[in-house]
Amino acid sequence: MSQYRVLIDANDEKGLVHKVSSIFYNYNLNILSNSEFVDKESNKFFMRSVVDGDVDKKELITALEDILPETASVKVIEPKKKNIILMVTKELHALGDILIRHEAGELDANILAVISNYDKLESLVKKFDIPYLSISHENLERAQHESKIIEAINNFEDVDYIVLAKYMRILTPHFVEEFAGKIINIHHSFLPAFIGANPYKQAYDRGVKIIGATAHFVNNNLDEGPIIAQDVKHINHAYSWQDMQKLGRDVEKVVLSRALKLALEDRIFVYANKTVIF
Amino acid sequence: MSQYRVLIDANDEKGLVHKVSSIFYNYNLNILSNSEFVDKESNKFFMRSVVDGDVDKKELITALEDILPETASVKVIEPKKKNIILMVTKELHALGDILIRHEAGELDANILAVISNYDKLESLVKKFDIPYLSISHENLERAQHESKIIEAINNFEDVDYIVLAKYMRILTPHFVEEFAGKIINIHHSFLPAFIGANPYKQAYDRGVKIIGATAHFVNNNLDEGPIIAQDVKHINHAYSWQDMQKLGRDVEKVVLSRALKLALEDRIFVYANKTVIF
Amino acid sequence: MSQYRVLIDANDEKGLVHKVSSIFYNYNLNILSNSEFVDKESNKFFMRSVVDGDVDKKELITALEDILPETASVKVIEPKKKNIILMVTKELHALGDILIRHEAGELDANILAVISNYDKLESLVKKFDIPYLSISHENLERAQHESKIIEAINNFEDVDYIVLAKYMRILTPHFVEEFAGKIINIHHSFLPAFIGANPYKQAYDRGVKIIGATAHFVNNNLDEGPIIAQDVKHINHAYSWQDMQKLGRDVEKVVLSRALKLALEDRIFVYANKTVIF
Amino acid sequence: MSQYRVLIDANDEKGLVHKVSSIFYNYNLNILSNSEFVDKESNKFFMRSVVDGDVDKKELITALEDILPETASVKVIEPKKKNIILMVTKELHALGDILIRHEAGELDANILAVISNYDKLESLVKKFDIPYLSISHENLERAQHESKIIEAINNFEDVDYIVLAKYMRILTPHFVEEFAGKIINIHHSFLPAFIGANPYKQAYDRGVKIIGATAHFVNNNLDEGPIIAQDVKHINHAYSWQDMQKLGRDVEKVVLSRALKLALEDRIFVYANKTVIF
Repeated sequence: MSQYRVLIDANDEKGLVHKVSSIFYNYNLNILSNSEFVDKESNKFFMRSVVDGDVDKKELITALEDILPETASVKVIEPKKKNIILMVTKELHALGDILIRHEAGELDANILAVISNYDKLESLVKKFDIPYLSISHENLERAQHESKIIEAINNFEDVDYIVLAKYMRILTPHFVEEFAGKIINIHHSFLPAFIGANPYKQAYDRGVKIIGATAHFVNNNLDEGPIIAQDVKHINHAYSWQDMQKLGRDVEKVVLSRALKLALEDRIFVYANKTVIF
Repeated sequence: MSQYRVLIDANDEKGLVHKVSSIFYNYNLNILSNSEFVDKESNKFFMRSVVDGDVDKKELITALEDILPETASVKVIEPKKKNIILMVTKELHALGDILIRHEAGELDANILAVISNYDKLESLVKKFDIPYLSISHENLERAQHESKIIEAINNFEDVDYIVLAKYMRILTPHFVEEFAGKIINIHHSFLPAFIGANPYKQAYDRGVKIIGATAHFVNNNLDEGPIIAQDVKHINHAYSWQDMQKLGRDVEKVVLSRALKLALEDRIFVYANKTVIF
Repeated sequence: MSQYRVLIDANDEKGLVHKVSSIFYNYNLNILSNSEFVDKESNKFFMRSVVDGDVDKKELITALEDILPETASVKVIEPKKKNIILMVTKELHALGDILIRHEAGELDANILAVISNYDKLESLVKKFDIPYLSISHENLERAQHESKIIEAINNFEDVDYIVLAKYMRILTPHFVEEFAGKIINIHHSFLPAFIGANPYKQAYDRGVKIIGATAHFVNNNLDEGPIIAQDVKHINHAYSWQDMQKLGRDVEKVVLSRALKLALEDRIFVYANKTVIF
Repeated sequence: MSQYRVLIDANDEKGLVHKVSSIFYNYNLNILSNSEFVDKESNKFFMRSVVDGDVDKKELITALEDILPETASVKVIEPKKKNIILMVTKELHALGDILIRHEAGELDANILAVISNYDKLESLVKKFDIPYLSISHENLERAQHESKIIEAINNFEDVDYIVLAKYMRILTPHFVEEFAGKIINIHHSFLPAFIGANPYKQAYDRGVKIIGATAHFVNNNLDEGPIIAQDVKHINHAYSWQDMQKLGRDVEKVVLSRALKLALEDRIFVYANKTVIF
């Protein structure tokens, strides 16, 4: 008996649910959970099913692809620990939350390494017996620095996600392309607001009554990929921008961990710079 | 071309989605949206599909019932305005919110009448050209008073829902049974807390930092039916219980209107004193 | 016995609380509530006290001004109904919420009139026996249209606030200046995001997971004055932009009514394009 | 130059703010922040001021006590790290959050030790070089077990707070009395709901749409002391009680850490089984 997460997207047309459920039925699979969504604007169909039964993975993929239209993308994933690499700079709140969740067995992931451009968080990471790679950017051009990081990442096999847990350097399109669809970032602001440096100071100057954070996939631009999760906190005039930053950290760590959990459970579809999350 | 909301629940077994989607496919129906849920604890399957196409309603029901197991309940509903009766006492916030939404065209409902045990809200209701039935409880025993209300309600045909928009009298099991599954109440507290009179005073005395409200179907007990919607607001020590009550009204009206909307859109399944909401 | 709201702001210096409380003490006034805040960044002091006792208003102002530094601004306000004018276009959710709250006695305000550039909401407003001034912008240049509105407003005496309850026309600097500090707007987005037309479509396209609304004073730019209140709702991929707009209306009306209430209770200080709210 | 947190409560009477601010003025103290609250129901006055200047602590206390009525309680506290002891059983989410915040320098506290009735969390705690005292309750009567814990705690000097970070044993009145006003607990439910074992199962059975957590001081009863902080999360029918428990942990850890921070900053007054928090 195996359990599979089946993820299908396709241009919408009549009968897709019928076709997929026929395959499940014919292979005598139990549907443990099933979610569908049709985006009418783009005419896209999304379906995520968790099934169990006695079927070979490749056979199931072939059967589904045979019956579905050519536009369909079919993924069949066995639930298992995914391999992740964390990238950080100097702040430890987001990293710490992930390390503690990992320790608590909440995250279905192996943390292969933590990579940083500083050595400040090394002692914390070492406590958890996780490799810490300090790759300083000093005296290096951006491309050189990134090459070193890319090399370090590629020394690991089967990296599923790279989590920017407050990695404060801008990534080049080259880096992003190298790990396309695998990079999750926590943005220190309620996107699409206050893009750029010190968003808390900007929010303070604007006198906002709510602050937030956004976890998103990184595509060509550090702050502009598909949004996975967002949350906010109410504030008032008595908050200095430093207070806002402190409170913001609580939002950031919760939102990033939630986004990571969704990714590890294969719950996210990405399309049109947006996400469908089941 | 007709549009239908198809609501199915059944004891869970393999192939239910397949069977239902086969029927849709065979009748050449488009699935506009589709949601499923299996409650593993009770082994219950729930499915709500919105479909359109060219099929007779009775034929569709028969086709579904023929293919589904005997435990299945099948409803096929044409989207149209539902008939509702509002019951109130003296407070106008929840009533007012419904009247304004109705006026704005947000609610897919005909308000047949507002029934109250006082005449206090008559002038407001009359502004909206809605019948106001003032049925005083004074000098009447509870059973007598309820008989009059039941009679008034039954003078209307096809009443879909009775909305207790701050109706502050306890209903007898007889009344509840008469309109089983049709009565929606807004409870002035975050269930299951502070059951009884003046919950805001109780919450104040307990020093809570959050207050809330709960919309639910009424079954045998005014405060204990299946919960449809809940929401909360944060408060602090500076709130008197009167302040809490004022703020509470804002939660109450929003939660009741949301619950009513879910009911009008046939999104709620009830079972085991709980709701499944798609 | 009179009750006063005393609002003081000044450049911060040692002894301000002492000086103010001395005056209250010397005049034998009870302090019913008292709030202070010092913005260290701008070195500004804010204080709002509610006091009661037997003192002449002018005498109290003079006493406070005599003891406070020259930079101080002193306001002593007797709680009473403020005069407000509502401006709307075609949507009735925000207007309706205010009308119902007014009817419920929740707002300490006289609604002098509702002004609109359309007659669509006239029948609703008339139900509440409130004058409805339909001032069409058709065939008029912006300045001409605004002149008519300004004239209409100035026909009323002692207008305290002009509430833009979804008034969808841009106001000129001239109009804003005419009623400086008196105009409250509800912005259909979580400022500072998605400025401009159809922010819900923009938010949809960006794939946000939270939407919001912002109530603010209007200064030189429709969307950029000091923020009074904000709130948000969580959404997901299944929301079309029309769904987002519908849900957004619920946020808008709640946030606008909250901001209006704060203004009516004289709880807002404005400075540096921000608000301090006690 | 010293900084002090001045906390005063007293039966309310005219002139209290004046008297306190006179002392601050006479001693040439800067008021960095100042908050007051009068509970009209119980006629109690609360004031918390942060001041800096050049004055001896004892002299300041004496001066305040001399001028204030006999009912007044005056505390003058120098901001410094407080000494805390954490008590846990087997779950690490709340403990982990505190350890990480401590590591990040967010908490103004020395963690003297972690005490547990199991050794399960020892390896985590040891990573942070914090003493872990495993005091098993096996084969011990409750009183004996508590005696050992009390002895262990009393081996440390100047313990300011004992934080029950998911300590799952009921404490006797004797224990609570021994550390009266110093014990902070996180309750795995939205008080006052679902008191007792497995509240998530109870909440699940009740079909609630919101879950929450409550941090509170412990008095005579594990779940009934003055509430410090509460928060909630929205859920739906798809949450099993295990899912609710997982999500609940996120609320628990955030709420407990917030409550601890408020305590460490001397922001909490306790009276009438409630808290005033500035």
